[in-house]
Amino acid sequence: MAQDKLKLIPLGGLGEFGMNCMALRWQDDILVIDAGLMFPEEELLGVDIVVPDISYLTENRDKVRGIVLTHGHEDHIGGLPWILSELNVPVYGTEFTLAFVEGKLEEHNLLDDAELNEIIPGHRLTLGPFSIMPIRVTHSLVDCVALAIHTPVGVVLHTGDFKVDLSPTDGQPFDLQAFAELGKQGVLALLQDSTNVDRRGYTPSEKAVRPRLNEIFGQTKKKLFFSCFSSSIHRIRLAMELAAEHGRKIAIIGRSLDNSTEIAQDLGYLEPAPGLLIHPGQIKDFPPEKLCIMISGTQGEPMSALSRAAVNNHKFARIDAGDTVLMSSRVIPGNEKSIYRVIDHLERRDATVIYDDGTAGLIHVSGHGSQEELRLMINLVRPKFFVPIHGDYRHLKRHVELASSMGLVEKAILMEDGEVLELDRNSATKTGNVTVGRVCIDSGGAASDVVEDLVIRDRRHLSEDGIVLPIIAINKGTGRLENLPEIVMRGMAVPEEGLIAEARQVVQRTLDGSSNEEKADYGVVKEKIRTDLKRFIQKSMSRRPLIMPVILEI
Amino acid sequence: MAQDKLKLIPLGGLGEFGMNCMALRWQDDILVIDAGLMFPEEELLGVDIVVPDISYLTENRDKVRGIVLTHGHEDHIGGLPWILSELNVPVYGTEFTLAFVEGKLEEHNLLDDAELNEIIPGHRLTLGPFSIMPIRVTHSLVDCVALAIHTPVGVVLHTGDFKVDLSPTDGQPFDLQAFAELGKQGVLALLQDSTNVDRRGYTPSEKAVRPRLNEIFGQTKKKLFFSCFSSSIHRIRLAMELAAEHGRKIAIIGRSLDNSTEIAQDLGYLEPAPGLLIHPGQIKDFPPEKLCIMISGTQGEPMSALSRAAVNNHKFARIDAGDTVLMSSRVIPGNEKSIYRVIDHLERRDATVIYDDGTAGLIHVSGHGSQEELRLMINLVRPKFFVPIHGDYRHLKRHVELASSMGLVEKAILMEDGEVLELDRNSATKTGNVTVGRVCIDSGGAASDVVEDLVIRDRRHLSEDGIVLPIIAINKGTGRLENLPEIVMRGMAVPEEGLIAEARQVVQRTLDGSSNEEKADYGVVKEKIRTDLKRFIQKSMSRRPLIMPVILEI
Repeated sequence: MAQDKLKLIPLGGLGEFGMNCMALRWQDDILVIDAGLMFPEEELLGVDIVVPDISYLTENRDKVRGIVLTHGHEDHIGGLPWILSELNVPVYGTEFTLAFVEGKLEEHNLLDDAELNEIIPGHRLTLGPFSIMPIRVTHSLVDCVALAIHTPVGVVLHTGDFKVDLSPTDGQPFDLQAFAELGKQGVLALLQDSTNVDRRGYTPSEKAVRPRLNEIFGQTKKKLFFSCFSSSIHRIRLAMELAAEHGRKIAIIGRSLDNSTEIAQDLGYLEPAPGLLIHPGQIKDFPPEKLCIMISGTQGEPMSALSRAAVNNHKFARIDAGDTVLMSSRVIPGNEKSIYRVIDHLERRDATVIYDDGTAGLIHVSGHGSQEELRLMINLVRPKFFVPIHGDYRHLKRHVELASSMGLVEKAILMEDGEVLELDRNSATKTGNVTVGRVCIDSGGAASDVVEDLVIRDRRHLSEDGIVLPIIAINKGTGRLENLPEIVMRGMAVPEEGLIAEARQVVQRTLDGSSNEEKADYGVVKEKIRTDLKRFIQKSMSRRPLIMPVILEI
Repeated sequence: MAQDKLKLIPLGGLGEFGMNCMALRWQDDILVIDAGLMFPEEELLGVDIVVPDISYLTENRDKVRGIVLTHGHEDHIGGLPWILSELNVPVYGTEFTLAFVEGKLEEHNLLDDAELNEIIPGHRLTLGPFSIMPIRVTHSLVDCVALAIHTPVGVVLHTGDFKVDLSPTDGQPFDLQAFAELGKQGVLALLQDSTNVDRRGYTPSEKAVRPRLNEIFGQTKKKLFFSCFSSSIHRIRLAMELAAEHGRKIAIIGRSLDNSTEIAQDLGYLEPAPGLLIHPGQIKDFPPEKLCIMISGTQGEPMSALSRAAVNNHKFARIDAGDTVLMSSRVIPGNEKSIYRVIDHLERRDATVIYDDGTAGLIHVSGHGSQEELRLMINLVRPKFFVPIHGDYRHLKRHVELASSMGLVEKAILMEDGEVLELDRNSATKTGNVTVGRVCIDSGGAASDVVEDLVIRDRRHLSEDGIVLPIIAINKGTGRLENLPEIVMRGMAVPEEGLIAEARQVVQRTLDGSSNEEKADYGVVKEKIRTDLKRFIQKSMSRRPLIMPVILEI
């Protein structure tokens, strides 16, 4: 009888990287694990973020008991503002994760109405028929957990994101014993992170980058710009330790980095030596060899502090000849062109740029476990059923093969978003599909420094706010415009001619106010135009259309 | 006196990868080396190819003595149709290079008017004051040369693209002795390929992939799909040898692969065993384990044979469960998403996909020399002056550092497109700039199978033919259109309402005629819409606007 079955329903993250979201249903109770976002593919111009379609949850809104978060990365919590605005249910997460969530909800004016509850590794939480035990795991972020969900038919173990880091910088050990204990007692299903299923061996510890970073701190003669993912708390901690050892002050530049380091300091994950941190405005008061500037923008994001500094357009971060810029991160596929553009700008300023080009030494490690760590956990847990999570189709497929080949799992099942897996003590069967999909959100310039009062909205009905295409023809040689910008509008009431003329002037002014270096960098130009035009249209027409600048190089 | 100076003027390829073009001027004589194209950055939607602005050459058209080609890759010859249509000068290249050029010019109806002259390694060619000695080098393509250009002030040595492959599959050895001999006699300036300046050590020989490819041929139980760059003649030769050894017939699928293998067979670079090749229509007559299907589309190009086969939309290339698809190439940065989309489609068909993911073994080698090969040549040649060519700014900069650090070069000079370097026997000085830039060309669907009578044109004046933006809103869940496609036109006489309605129907029909798998792949959808709409507009309005499909996922 289907009534006695546990349903496992992935709503996002199985078939793509990002927007992780998983529902578990037992009769009339639904538990949601994670609520992530995804950054859009290049085909989706003009869209800032993508979140999972949660129709299945809203259609069953009286049954949803809450959302439990495994950790604070965007692909696990970034969809919360949108989801909570549709479905305000309690949210559960560790202290650090909730601190990130709070900031995010506050930005969207959703914090007052949200119910946030802290969970603590090793302490059970009961939600309807689900009894949930958070288990400490290690990852590139801190305070991350796996979730052992005790259900009427057995334990479902969701790993969240993890690697087996045996020397985490925060001294919080991976709770391997808890996994072993669960394995001995019997686990019905293991849902395991597939991100690095293609990598052989073990992923190095976060501490493994220390020797090479230490060398770089030692060799740098002038200013050291240190860029990493703003959530890489372990990495930031190492950088702070090394700066102190090498007698450099630290200035932090960039909103996301500011925010994450503040949270991490509040919660004791970062403990900078007294006097180590200086305000960016004080940079000019110190000799270059006494400075380490932590700066956001490691993926070449067009409006990030590093991108702006690279074209000499940042108030505090001036990059001079002889400075070193260390990008302690990986080059995420799809971002190469933006990143290499920034690097070229930096090289033109005669800075030494150290990035993950295969020759830089160990300046970055992944936060996800490689094949041996996946096998290690499967061996400890020995689940009856196995479901890979977090990955494109090919990762899920390889992960099924990896798990099956170990001979410890009764059945490994390749699931994709929207499929329903019904489980009881003895069987796991796919029985149908629910509605899933991607919802595109235009957040008003995520990279902008201005925190706007964002209206989170579904773009399901294009006709609602329409689409605006500013078309700009730039002469590559001179950097000048060939004509006044064209503005094409669709799906919105045709505005008066005067307004279009004004909009053209707005774009023209944005271009006039940009340096030649900026104008040569179309990513930057597009983002600036998008931000300025959005503000203008919102003010003058009270509309929030999708804005997709088109640049023609001539 | 400037009259006695040799001028070196890069018109493309110094500050970007692609569109390589270099001018040498002595008084009233100009020699051009290579005439390449570049594939556009993603910002340049709707543009097929990019070629260098040759204003400098057209302004001095009576002085241009000819274009000498180093080899037949697109980034060295692909700009020829456009350049020759502006400036019909004699072209010089080796036999194989000219065979590629002929096909290209014929496609554009330019062959009859072109003057093509064969050069032979070791045989001098004189053009005005320049006496040019082609020297055999090795690369991923065959019949490649460096050019030693004897000028009144000394020898300028242009390497073309090269690696030092000591066991080329065609048995044509790299002429190291010629470089050594030139070095002993004295070289004024060495212009060296910077592509792999970031890579340590030596690049492996083209033959180095044989053991791993042999393993794959041996392990594959059903059909083997073998995909590589269509110009990788060495790789194709290896595949043909292995297919013969393993008792598999070869079918060749894809226009570019067809074309290059035909040329290579004609000129003796490929010598398939009698009976080895079958027509694609015969695939069905052989058991899967007796087949090797060479298929183009290794970069996930949306309309390529492999992309179409991956969504089961190719007449002859059907991919079944258990087949193996080997992508014997690298993942070119920027192409990840297209490539991974194709791989995901292939995995869904339960094919085994082997690609360059770091775990596949040595299935591909680069065609460009690594650091030790660059040093080896600098040591042999010991030029007075050194100029890196072919690369982004950061590559050129590192290459200058590499050359300078050897202590064998008097001066290494970082030049960018448009800069003028004046050389005499004792000095090299930058003295000014000429007009350079990028010209965007819309060739009518490069990936299309239909060879159209292409009009090569400059897009300098957008107003000439305008721009068309088909806007399509696809429901991700259902794959259906939300509304009829919108068509926005700009910069062209407004067509009658009926014509726009027809255009919308054209787009609608294209979508109706696409499978769900195709519709889920926006790269494919866009390319199909672009091709069909272009044909319609050309027929009905005799216009060739830029067509940039915009897909909104909702």
